Amino acid sequence: MPSYTAPTRDMQFLLHEVLDVSSAGIPGYDELEADFTGAVLDEAGKIASEVLAPLNEVGDREGCTLENGIVRTPAGFKAAYEQMCAGGWLGLDLDPAHGGQGMPYLLGTAVGEIFVSANMAFQMYLGLTHGACSAIHAHGSAEQKAVYLAKMTAGTWSGTMNLTEPHCGTDLGQIRTRAEPQDDGSYKITGTKIFISAGDQDLSENVIHLVLARAPGGGPGTRGISLFIVPKFLVNEDGSLGERNAVSVGNIEEKMGIHGNATCVMNYDGATGFLIGDLHKGMRAMFTMMNEARIGVGLQGYAQAEAAYQNALAYARERLQGRAVGGAQNPDGPADPLIVHPDVRRMLMEQKSFVEGARAFAFWGAELIDRHMRMGDEDAHGLISLMTPVIKGFLTDKGFESTVLAQQVLGGHGYIEEQGMSQFVRDARITQIYEGANGIQALDLVGRKLGLDGGRHVMAFFEMVKDFIKENNDNEALNADFLTPLKAASKDLQAAGMYFMQHGMKTPENALSGAYDFMHLFGHTCLGLMWARMAKSALAALEAGRGDAAFYEAKLATGRYYMARQLPATTLHLRRIETGAAPVMSLAEDAF
Amino acid sequence: MPSYTAPTRDMQFLLHEVLDVSSAGIPGYDELEADFTGAVLDEAGKIASEVLAPLNEVGDREGCTLENGIVRTPAGFKAAYEQMCAGGWLGLDLDPAHGGQGMPYLLGTAVGEIFVSANMAFQMYLGLTHGACSAIHAHGSAEQKAVYLAKMTAGTWSGTMNLTEPHCGTDLGQIRTRAEPQDDGSYKITGTKIFISAGDQDLSENVIHLVLARAPGGGPGTRGISLFIVPKFLVNEDGSLGERNAVSVGNIEEKMGIHGNATCVMNYDGATGFLIGDLHKGMRAMFTMMNEARIGVGLQGYAQAEAAYQNALAYARERLQGRAVGGAQNPDGPADPLIVHPDVRRMLMEQKSFVEGARAFAFWGAELIDRHMRMGDEDAHGLISLMTPVIKGFLTDKGFESTVLAQQVLGGHGYIEEQGMSQFVRDARITQIYEGANGIQALDLVGRKLGLDGGRHVMAFFEMVKDFIKENNDNEALNADFLTPLKAASKDLQAAGMYFMQHGMKTPENALSGAYDFMHLFGHTCLGLMWARMAKSALAALEAGRGDAAFYEAKLATGRYYMARQLPATTLHLRRIETGAAPVMSLAEDAF
Repeated sequence: MPSYTAPTRDMQFLLHEVLDVSSAGIPGYDELEADFTGAVLDEAGKIASEVLAPLNEVGDREGCTLENGIVRTPAGFKAAYEQMCAGGWLGLDLDPAHGGQGMPYLLGTAVGEIFVSANMAFQMYLGLTHGACSAIHAHGSAEQKAVYLAKMTAGTWSGTMNLTEPHCGTDLGQIRTRAEPQDDGSYKITGTKIFISAGDQDLSENVIHLVLARAPGGGPGTRGISLFIVPKFLVNEDGSLGERNAVSVGNIEEKMGIHGNATCVMNYDGATGFLIGDLHKGMRAMFTMMNEARIGVGLQGYAQAEAAYQNALAYARERLQGRAVGGAQNPDGPADPLIVHPDVRRMLMEQKSFVEGARAFAFWGAELIDRHMRMGDEDAHGLISLMTPVIKGFLTDKGFESTVLAQQVLGGHGYIEEQGMSQFVRDARITQIYEGANGIQALDLVGRKLGLDGGRHVMAFFEMVKDFIKENNDNEALNADFLTPLKAASKDLQAAGMYFMQHGMKTPENALSGAYDFMHLFGHTCLGLMWARMAKSALAALEAGRGDAAFYEAKLATGRYYMARQLPATTLHLRRIETGAAPVMSLAEDAF
Repeated sequence: MPSYTAPTRDMQFLLHEVLDVSSAGIPGYDELEADFTGAVLDEAGKIASEVLAPLNEVGDREGCTLENGIVRTPAGFKAAYEQMCAGGWLGLDLDPAHGGQGMPYLLGTAVGEIFVSANMAFQMYLGLTHGACSAIHAHGSAEQKAVYLAKMTAGTWSGTMNLTEPHCGTDLGQIRTRAEPQDDGSYKITGTKIFISAGDQDLSENVIHLVLARAPGGGPGTRGISLFIVPKFLVNEDGSLGERNAVSVGNIEEKMGIHGNATCVMNYDGATGFLIGDLHKGMRAMFTMMNEARIGVGLQGYAQAEAAYQNALAYARERLQGRAVGGAQNPDGPADPLIVHPDVRRMLMEQKSFVEGARAFAFWGAELIDRHMRMGDEDAHGLISLMTPVIKGFLTDKGFESTVLAQQVLGGHGYIEEQGMSQFVRDARITQIYEGANGIQALDLVGRKLGLDGGRHVMAFFEMVKDFIKENNDNEALNADFLTPLKAASKDLQAAGMYFMQHGMKTPENALSGAYDFMHLFGHTCLGLMWARMAKSALAALEAGRGDAAFYEAKLATGRYYMARQLPATTLHLRRIETGAAPVMSLAEDAF
């Protein structure tokens, strides 16, 4: 069975050396002293290793069941859920006014990664509730906040998001679920929602569904959609649970992975719902939740890769197979460990260099969110809006590939379910699909985010890269291995942007045909920037003789792998982009 | 549930226009007239669509069971197996002296693709038997051939290959299974073999296991290994079944995919075995089977991609979601079909251009095998030996990626088991692992095959590409879109070979660190050559006004996609190769 150890050393390096949180000047970051974050991460790591990780395989094997309308989660999930709630983990970065601990989003991100690595299907029950809290916090009335937030922050009640219907996923303008206004100001909600993660369970006392539906008087398409709160049990005035609402689970889907999470068909049969936010402005409210969810899904992508990598590495160290090309490394044994072989090393370095770069990217993104939420920094907001599809799309695509590589290290044993590597692959696969399939992320990036505020945010990104290179130009140790490749990648990214400007305005298909490659080109450039930053911090630590030299040397070697072997993919992506729409679109639909 | 239609039109194009089999001058190819191959492929396609494909999901869901030592295959497998055997499909390209139909390997390849696309787990029962027949045919005594081949060719008995043991897969030198010589010339075989595909079943009357084991007097490592025939039931002198041999199924593995095939732990407890081939030369004999199996696995890779593509395409045509960027294409409907969207089109073109290129590559490889087997053409043998790891490694890596893309087209619906797209991904995944994990294929290619016969075969490949470009240089329609990119790819491949020559001789790690990229670089170049050939044939057909212009135009458009968007990956692979061992190997083992 796979095991998991939280990468707390790497997280501390990011927090205190790369991001240097204590001097970032962000309100609340003064609390993030190294001892404190170290203690929090250690504690999260302990629960992850001892409680959540051992339940990962149980969840996969048992899955969830639906009997007489009751959803049952796998054995052990309820006890683990209670422990997580009792520890206050759900509300770590939520509003203290409703029982949260008010920690920065950045710390929530680090802790979230740990829990997701250990047991993604389980953590989704908490993650969906967290997202629903954010939406209610941002768009709910004072009364709604008072009724729901404290219970949800404590995990006593949970939350879900209901968008997809059988005939429409991405294209939410086709939504048919109806909301009929009632005399008391509430609505009757009727319709079917599918693919509802954590749609119901036996963990929480109540489930607060956030549901997109169409109320009378709205326009067609997405303009006529509103967001409603539909509790499983209606809430009495005193906050106690009232009667059962007319919402039920129609089915639990059989999926490729994340079996421990109940993906439900939800039937709303005239269920009582309450408008949240403005009428017919439901999409805007839902986007609060979706943006948070998208960044969370990007995190899932690399968190699964981290967990899979740890187990591939352990196997590569233990399994004795073949001899090193330069002569036996384990002459007393029947063979050398797998890790001596260059191609095994290649697979491990691919994973390691991706995961560490991805973590830096996610943490940086979380810092931008804190800058916006805690300081009202609109530049940071613009930048993270631009980055959100990249974090979601790139980190999940590469995260999935990374789990496949991890499985490959085990050879035939990786294909056997008992070893647990298959589960990482099957679980990671969903991250490329849900919260907007990655093709939609690419479309969002190129069709919407690039041009946002006149292209100001992508220009700011280029400036940031340019400034970093300029500031560190005299740092010879950094220059050849890190700055030069970063410069090349950034040039490719700019050239791709230029291509879209010149060829995509008149013929949008020229841009849309290259959108996916652009997302990857952007992602690689971001990871290149992250690695350059990490290398700078590692070099500084070595120069200062701060101790733990092996850690910093490893960081540099891993970064050099990324810059030498992964980053040059930008050139291929640019080349694909510059072929424009013709190769993609010239085959007529009926000629396929 | 997914459906499958055999791509007979495309196969006929390859056989009769690209390979032009009737004028190839290969003994037996004169039988391959277009009417005949068309009829055979149609018949195979009919069984595939009507019998095998509907059982694919059944096999995945039910899997195989072991009860009281008896292996049961999924419902319907036995009837399908009987139908396949009655039709003589197993022996299509086997020796007529033992009941085969003696058709060329090329035709067997085309038919094999069809069956594998429809139901890979099922077809493996026949495929393993086919491989065992080949090994007995090549290395068995006249008596052994007489005893086993006719029954196996008919499918009355089946075959397996037993290599892997719990402590060794790739590193067969560690094999512990013992063979003790008996007075009657037989051996007692004792040991445990794992991951034995089609290890047992309820389809055939007997199972003929080919087992690697260590007989006394051999050297250490692979030199001391011999190959043995170990029948499940011993065979009486009159050919009837005798007593049960001491071989049993210890367990059936729970796997990520190919659930319909029983992957067995086989226990040999002093089972009676018969030496096949020379004592202590078992590896050589087993390689006959393994080379055939490796090409067969390459075929599985793209055959799964074909099946997945067909279903992704159908979904993209049916599912209405969003509007085309240039204006509604289906104005009377609620939305346009997915296929109007450039990024969906990109995913489809990636799959289509890979699968059709891969099919051409596999068919060409099969022709090389026929040239060797039917004409003793040693150059053809050298070339296919060189190509075998490329066919296996590249076509399965890309085949798997292609199934993932197909699943992606369906969005959330692709993740639900009911849709069947997950099964294609899970089934295809094994092809990258078994018959030598793809890293081993890369090692075989770079460490062994490149230098074979003084590098003569890789030079022959380069000459072939050069000659093709030269011969067709005046073909303007071919030149820009096909010859120019092919030339660039071939140049990258040669540069990579040169790098290995210059840096890999003294420091083999410089070559081994780039072996995997080299395998992909080689694979892309082969598919580039295939596309250039197919384009030439398509252009000639259009010029000759041979009718079916839409088919040839589609072929050209698909080829242009490959040349423009996929082939440039060669440059990235070369660049990775040229970074040498340093990025891969410089991180110390204990610093991971």
